[in-house]
Amino acid sequence: MSDMAMRAQGLRRMLRAQSVAVIGASADASRVGGRPIALMQGYGFNGAIHPVNLKADTIQGLPAWRSVADIPAEVDLAICSVPAEQVAETVRQCAARGIPGVIVFAGGFAEVDEAGRARQEELAQIARTSSIRILGPNSVGFADFRRGLVASFHPAFPPSMPRDGRIGLVTQSGAFAGMSSLLAAARGGSFSYVLATGNEADVEVAECVAFLAEDENTDVILCYIETCRDGPRMIEALALAQKRRKPVVVVKLGRTEAGARAAQSHSAALAGADAIYDAVFRQFGVYRARSLEEFFDVGFAAAIAPLPKGDSLGIMTVSGGAGVLLADTAVDYGLSVDPLPEACRQEMRELVPIAGVENPLDLTGYVINSPPLFSRAMRMIVEGTDFASISAYQGGLYRNRQAIEPHLPIWRAVRQDHPNRLFTLSGFMDGDCHRAFEALGIPTYREPTHAIRATAALRHFARAFAREKTVRRKTATPPLPTGPIDEPEALGFLQEAGIPAAPHRLAGSPDEAVAAAEAFGFPVALKIVASGLIHKSDIGGVRLNLANAEAVRAGFDSIVTVVRQARPDLAIRGCLVMPMQRGGVECIIGTVRDPSFGPAVMFGLGGVLVEVLKDVSFRIAPFDVAEAHRMIDETRGAVILNGVRGAPPADREALALALARLSEIAHAHAASVRSIEANPFMVFPRGQGAAAVDAVIERDS
Amino acid sequence: MSDMAMRAQGLRRMLRAQSVAVIGASADASRVGGRPIALMQGYGFNGAIHPVNLKADTIQGLPAWRSVADIPAEVDLAICSVPAEQVAETVRQCAARGIPGVIVFAGGFAEVDEAGRARQEELAQIARTSSIRILGPNSVGFADFRRGLVASFHPAFPPSMPRDGRIGLVTQSGAFAGMSSLLAAARGGSFSYVLATGNEADVEVAECVAFLAEDENTDVILCYIETCRDGPRMIEALALAQKRRKPVVVVKLGRTEAGARAAQSHSAALAGADAIYDAVFRQFGVYRARSLEEFFDVGFAAAIAPLPKGDSLGIMTVSGGAGVLLADTAVDYGLSVDPLPEACRQEMRELVPIAGVENPLDLTGYVINSPPLFSRAMRMIVEGTDFASISAYQGGLYRNRQAIEPHLPIWRAVRQDHPNRLFTLSGFMDGDCHRAFEALGIPTYREPTHAIRATAALRHFARAFAREKTVRRKTATPPLPTGPIDEPEALGFLQEAGIPAAPHRLAGSPDEAVAAAEAFGFPVALKIVASGLIHKSDIGGVRLNLANAEAVRAGFDSIVTVVRQARPDLAIRGCLVMPMQRGGVECIIGTVRDPSFGPAVMFGLGGVLVEVLKDVSFRIAPFDVAEAHRMIDETRGAVILNGVRGAPPADREALALALARLSEIAHAHAASVRSIEANPFMVFPRGQGAAAVDAVIERDS
Repeated sequence: MSDMAMRAQGLRRMLRAQSVAVIGASADASRVGGRPIALMQGYGFNGAIHPVNLKADTIQGLPAWRSVADIPAEVDLAICSVPAEQVAETVRQCAARGIPGVIVFAGGFAEVDEAGRARQEELAQIARTSSIRILGPNSVGFADFRRGLVASFHPAFPPSMPRDGRIGLVTQSGAFAGMSSLLAAARGGSFSYVLATGNEADVEVAECVAFLAEDENTDVILCYIETCRDGPRMIEALALAQKRRKPVVVVKLGRTEAGARAAQSHSAALAGADAIYDAVFRQFGVYRARSLEEFFDVGFAAAIAPLPKGDSLGIMTVSGGAGVLLADTAVDYGLSVDPLPEACRQEMRELVPIAGVENPLDLTGYVINSPPLFSRAMRMIVEGTDFASISAYQGGLYRNRQAIEPHLPIWRAVRQDHPNRLFTLSGFMDGDCHRAFEALGIPTYREPTHAIRATAALRHFARAFAREKTVRRKTATPPLPTGPIDEPEALGFLQEAGIPAAPHRLAGSPDEAVAAAEAFGFPVALKIVASGLIHKSDIGGVRLNLANAEAVRAGFDSIVTVVRQARPDLAIRGCLVMPMQRGGVECIIGTVRDPSFGPAVMFGLGGVLVEVLKDVSFRIAPFDVAEAHRMIDETRGAVILNGVRGAPPADREALALALARLSEIAHAHAASVRSIEANPFMVFPRGQGAAAVDAVIERDS
Repeated sequence: MSDMAMRAQGLRRMLRAQSVAVIGASADASRVGGRPIALMQGYGFNGAIHPVNLKADTIQGLPAWRSVADIPAEVDLAICSVPAEQVAETVRQCAARGIPGVIVFAGGFAEVDEAGRARQEELAQIARTSSIRILGPNSVGFADFRRGLVASFHPAFPPSMPRDGRIGLVTQSGAFAGMSSLLAAARGGSFSYVLATGNEADVEVAECVAFLAEDENTDVILCYIETCRDGPRMIEALALAQKRRKPVVVVKLGRTEAGARAAQSHSAALAGADAIYDAVFRQFGVYRARSLEEFFDVGFAAAIAPLPKGDSLGIMTVSGGAGVLLADTAVDYGLSVDPLPEACRQEMRELVPIAGVENPLDLTGYVINSPPLFSRAMRMIVEGTDFASISAYQGGLYRNRQAIEPHLPIWRAVRQDHPNRLFTLSGFMDGDCHRAFEALGIPTYREPTHAIRATAALRHFARAFAREKTVRRKTATPPLPTGPIDEPEALGFLQEAGIPAAPHRLAGSPDEAVAAAEAFGFPVALKIVASGLIHKSDIGGVRLNLANAEAVRAGFDSIVTVVRQARPDLAIRGCLVMPMQRGGVECIIGTVRDPSFGPAVMFGLGGVLVEVLKDVSFRIAPFDVAEAHRMIDETRGAVILNGVRGAPPADREALALALARLSEIAHAHAASVRSIEANPFMVFPRGQGAAAVDAVIERDS
């Protein structure tokens, strides 16, 4: 077993503990060392609890031990409730006993000062050099509600929770771990696991996601994070969840500068570049929520309802206005609201002459007040159409249990007959009504637009899970040129690596330049080639549109003269001769290296879109051509590639191939390449390919 | 008194009725003709109710009359609960008796078929030719909760509502009128008025907004609309509300094609162009909500809390994560989250060494659990800073009345001492807690991001109400040229009307063209001038960058030849000679005529931004220069005018002046001009002005 696999096994053992030691156990259930025992006993934890206390013989009715070494049974998990100064020694004792994992509650580590940082590093060191796993420090612990293993001191954990939750929550905020159970209880839901990672001296968020991705009692993963310390591991965990078809919903905090400032002071961690996080989330099918409400709305919907097979939505409403609101919102979210088929409209008109038979289908009070009519209308919109999702708005008609009684059997029957359709319901309902419908697998919302948001989110997961992961072509990537890389070397390297470059030739003299230009055909561009020079046009090192031999000769001389004057330190190799590239769409493709996630590829359309509107998209390398197409589609300007203002459609396939290929190059040379950029990267009309017109490769010095 | 003022007075009299006739009154309180009587009696309506019934002598304990003519008292309002076929006759009787207003409940009018449309037109005709005002048909009526005048049959109106509501609601959806009181009650709020306009044969939504803008019991106006039948009246109403400093929150339905299809089938009204509605809302400070939740969240906040004096926000939190979420969201909404002043940070550090003293201010459990400490922290963030708004997140700590008891006096005192600051609060609270804080004028939310959304919305109103309405310069606008208008006439007209145009001269021969070009200086452009030709470059009617006399002469001949071949039907006047315009930012300015709101002005930056991204903004004409600047700022590309990629800042002032001037021209010639467009409109570097380079004016034929 690899070291990584062993460590994952240690985490699994601690999170599935049958036997728990509580070090620093207190008889007082309101104290940090007392609450976990009280909670576990209250929840009816089905394993053994071993209090450890220097003085007492029994704690909360359980035999207590002087030290963890004295416990006469196997221990899977130690809860360490001792002051910061004693933590390292206690953890060492646990490691010496072979305990798989320990939770460290104490604060006073990296989140406070230099001494705290040193204490935390000591813990990290123990974890690295032994087999023990450490959750924390500064963690409120975790809860496995199914088994009653509430290994936490957080006062917000209620005295009981339903045991059938299928949602696993990972959070870097301890306060949120406690709060989450209140929020879940308020909507009649629960969790399989709540895991609070605290300062992450050892166990971090990505490993917890991977654990939940494999946990058989978890169907959906909620993740509340400020920063991700190990990007590659997070990618692996998210890819695993995607493979297991488990929806992941994320709140990523610290999106803005103000947010990041607060995040930094809070968890002593640097917030990563937000665009890269966004790229990771998109790439692995994660849904990013912008509020806690959305986080839970989407998470709970994913836990009870099927994922819709298509974008089409049918709307049933008792209020024309709400129907319009639902339709507007659906279109905003990228769903399609197509008219009902004519047969269906005809049938509906016969059923209720005054009903609105568009989509939204406007059910009248007449229909609603007659269960047989409602049942027929319901069957009609489900069975007379192929809408993948149906959203119904019931105004105040379903406001209490009594009101829904005549309709519930109808919903139950339709649901059972059509298990693969997504049904959502909105309107003014009390808690009983919400629970009654959600028990049928029908997410319910007071706010109508939230039903649509949830539908779109579940559709997002359906699309993400349906993606074919193509096996990456393991094309060999050529070695990088040695030393600093000048433009002809960069273009040559890209070309050799499978990314087309415009024809070019290095000319050492005016005569050579003229010969090259005549071979290519006029007009041509001339660009200075000198090691270490990047912004060559700023100092007059570029001439464009040279139309004849005379212009090329004069251009060569003047470029060399001005560059020599401006930068006498540079060794000039000559000028690059390139035929002018016309008739293409100017794009930028490039790579950056994220400190957490590694090499990423950027795409944007040239000019104002990139430079002014920052209309770019990213993906983590490597990725396939299908992902490259999604990446292109994400930019607002992508429509330009379809051909606008009379231009022909561009060769998107060549562009997507180049992006995918670039991702493989960035991945293969991750250690030595800081960035690659082809700007412009010209994409010619369909069938005519693409070409890097300029290229810069920065390597680590 | 003008006819309009008289009609407004009629509406006021019916909405403030002291004496109500119910025609078609029923003894059964569950029937349409019985419910209004039961509701008014239940609510303790302080006026007189006169049932009218063909057979009964008493109805629900009240003396009944055979016809409206028999009622031995003055009647301010008649509720007409008779079938569609009898409505016109009944309304005529009411008009004959001099009753100021009638509500028509019956459906079966323009929303169903041709016969219904005729019936509705008959009602409109009665309203036009008498002094009676008609609310409906197909209206659920209205409610004045303050006086218990619930003139509605809608079953969702609850048996009682608080009488102190300060929010007036106008809705075109009857279902929503009923639903709204459930939604308000759920958050412990109420309305001054709920007005449902139905099919709007006479009274329409704009008049109701104007009524509420003048109503002394209404502070905030909520408006739920599908379409606005009388644009100019709506503009007047919104301007009045803005002048009275009454926030208006709108849900405008039918934004998308799918939504509009549903809207059309629902209310037999055409949905207007959404961009124009957006322009109207922005121009008059209206807040547009995208969900019912947002609609009420913003409306209720505006009804209880002060409008913040600036963009700055201070954040207090008990959870670092939630603090980051609040900060992120605040930045998204355009608020500023600046660090605490150093003195303040110092004081806070002394108070609680472990507190996070950035902004967000991370209050620890230590502070929260000590009311004196909490009070000091609260005072510090309010009095040690000049944050215009403060948003506090309390996690689950304020979950019930008992939990908030120690803190309420602190909030009350700070609120009283700082009546002009906006405080918002979020976290997990029960209904009691929400009401307790809202009674202090502190809007509360379960979802933290909604506190920020409300803050931003109130800030939006503060900005809108602070706008100086400059008195419009009543510059005379020259008359339009007669007949079809060709390019030199259009450029000349704009120039005469105060919008700069590039130098240009009409040349009837190659010699004249050369003379003009030599006078202007080379290079020049030549453009064909022929009546009725718009897309002149498509048929070869334009030559650019002509560098010398020879080129101009050849260009003139070739233009005339190709145009004559392509369009032998056109009378060619010659060619327009114009020096090439360089060094400016290409914009598009133009006017359109909206069928409901009249002339509107459009602005966009030329090229890909307008043509591909549709990055344009609109305003209803006329408007002032300050409004023109806001209009420019609304486009994503506006930043280009600041100078990007090394370009100097553009002459924004000249652009804004041109837009404002164009709005006056469009307004003055509203009757005869269909559209004006200057494309490109070149905006030169600051101080160098701007110029229309091409102009097209379309007049009504």
